[in-house]
Amino acid sequence: MSELRRDPLLRRWVIIAPERRVDLITRPRSHPPIVQETPCPFCPGNEHLNPQEIYVDRVQRTEQNPGGWAIRITPDRKPLLRIEGPLERRGIGLFDLMSATGAHELVTDTPDHEAHWADFDLAQMERLLRSYLVRYRDLRNDRRFRHAVIMKNYGAPWSRYPHQHSHIVAMPFVPRRIDDELIGAREYYELKERCVLCDALQEEQKQGERIIADNDEFVALVPFASGFPFETWVLPRRHMHDFGGLENRDLPKLAAIFQEMMSKLRTTLQDPHFSLALHSAPLNGERAEDFHWHWELIPHLSGEIGMEWATGVYFNPISPEDAAACLREGVPFNKAC
Amino acid sequence: MSELRRDPLLRRWVIIAPERRVDLITRPRSHPPIVQETPCPFCPGNEHLNPQEIYVDRVQRTEQNPGGWAIRITPDRKPLLRIEGPLERRGIGLFDLMSATGAHELVTDTPDHEAHWADFDLAQMERLLRSYLVRYRDLRNDRRFRHAVIMKNYGAPWSRYPHQHSHIVAMPFVPRRIDDELIGAREYYELKERCVLCDALQEEQKQGERIIADNDEFVALVPFASGFPFETWVLPRRHMHDFGGLENRDLPKLAAIFQEMMSKLRTTLQDPHFSLALHSAPLNGERAEDFHWHWELIPHLSGEIGMEWATGVYFNPISPEDAAACLREGVPFNKAC
Repeated sequence: MSELRRDPLLRRWVIIAPERRVDLITRPRSHPPIVQETPCPFCPGNEHLNPQEIYVDRVQRTEQNPGGWAIRITPDRKPLLRIEGPLERRGIGLFDLMSATGAHELVTDTPDHEAHWADFDLAQMERLLRSYLVRYRDLRNDRRFRHAVIMKNYGAPWSRYPHQHSHIVAMPFVPRRIDDELIGAREYYELKERCVLCDALQEEQKQGERIIADNDEFVALVPFASGFPFETWVLPRRHMHDFGGLENRDLPKLAAIFQEMMSKLRTTLQDPHFSLALHSAPLNGERAEDFHWHWELIPHLSGEIGMEWATGVYFNPISPEDAAACLREGVPFNKAC
Repeated sequence: MSELRRDPLLRRWVIIAPERRVDLITRPRSHPPIVQETPCPFCPGNEHLNPQEIYVDRVQRTEQNPGGWAIRITPDRKPLLRIEGPLERRGIGLFDLMSATGAHELVTDTPDHEAHWADFDLAQMERLLRSYLVRYRDLRNDRRFRHAVIMKNYGAPWSRYPHQHSHIVAMPFVPRRIDDELIGAREYYELKERCVLCDALQEEQKQGERIIADNDEFVALVPFASGFPFETWVLPRRHMHDFGGLENRDLPKLAAIFQEMMSKLRTTLQDPHFSLALHSAPLNGERAEDFHWHWELIPHLSGEIGMEWATGVYFNPISPEDAAACLREGVPFNKAC
């Protein structure tokens, strides 16, 4: 039976419509295959195909990996935002413009052309997260930037390359989507003097139905008002508004949650295409009491995204409890699950 | 050269990144073909495949169309929202739920299985718009509903059927996306005591670069901070917050704009897949001074939507001026355009 659920953070109503489940499973990942660019710009030996390194996590040099790197971060070859120059603002009549000033960094997640995130060992996942953290902290110091996102698109048509990579983008504005979260979090805080996601986490633990993996420090769950089937979030248990505030000692447990989540998603949804993004507070350090950083992962399963795009109304044909049950148990998704 | 543009209504920054244009044109509409369900549930003679009619625009009966209809509206076979019963609200711990109460109507846009919107004659387009208006006004009277949207998805994977159809959905909440517009419109009004889209229209006429078609009553344009390549809006010239406030005498001119826009889009983008949605004020009649109804059309051209989905940051590889120039002239889009 359909129902409407309200997202406590975005204050957005989502249609949970299990009758529409057929739309999901009859057309899974109906995308064309990735056409591989040759040679692969992410493979060891082809480092010259991307710009100068910003950051490298070094490992033993080998014949296959003569550069001896585990993670490599460079500027994007075609950056959405450019690091050079001051931030310039102007108007054209009533319209407002800024220079496209920002950072757009490209992360090679692994030297192994074939390795999926779910194949990473804990050490590699931890290296990747540490690299994110180093770059995030560095970009936070640039006063031109108001927000930074770390994101990954896996699978066509969202990504052109099978070799695993991700993006770090720092921008001189706070995206509308994050701003909606900030407003929701602040209004909840003004009412209760508590963080909405701290409260939601406590409620999730009490209800239990939507948690898929957890440890002392982190939780992976399918949120109550998921806008997309099998949407999955990773959150720190303790209140933290800023991803950059993580300590290196926190990374093994975060790596473990990511690895477990990726492995379950791959099993349950048979290697789904997905988008993953970090949602953290604005870079200027404000909103420390009420915002709670988290990662959001959206598998690209359903073709029917026209409504979300055009109207902002989300409908989701898989109840979050069903999705969490499949993922928690690590069983392949099918009509019975 | 990239730049950032601020949407005056949504107050959202968009990255206009022409360097990324290649991403658009190397992978146009990379979707699988529509698999036609047989028999077509929208064709004359197969009326029994959809539920009981809610509204029909009658024409002469013919051998091909024994039911004698030009437009036909029924409930959706698998409605996202259900018309029956009262709106029920409850909580589960801190989470909020409502019954999935609403209306979900399915519009058959034409009896002709092959006709594209751009093929419609003005009379058929006017009939379609009149049908929308009749249903919109009727749904507005139901006090359970706060918002109604009229929307159309054309092309896979957003629609399963080649026969042209559209949806009318009335819901007991205002979608986040519309709410963002309402907030933007109100803040502008509070500052200036003028409607933001009335002002933007005036500015667009002055600048001229982004208008693609217009007449005495309506304008079709590519908005200044378009989040998607070739995004196109249709607005009334005079201030109107409520689509239901249109008069029948306004429909010929609206039909003419739609037909012209559809024809130009088909020529320029070679029959693009698209989503179209009406954005009108909440149904309770408030926001009369500051909101301005409009239709938004988004062609589905670019594969790189992971970022928009995951973070709410939009980037658009075609400047709105370039898009408008192609559409205005009705020339096919290519690298030179």
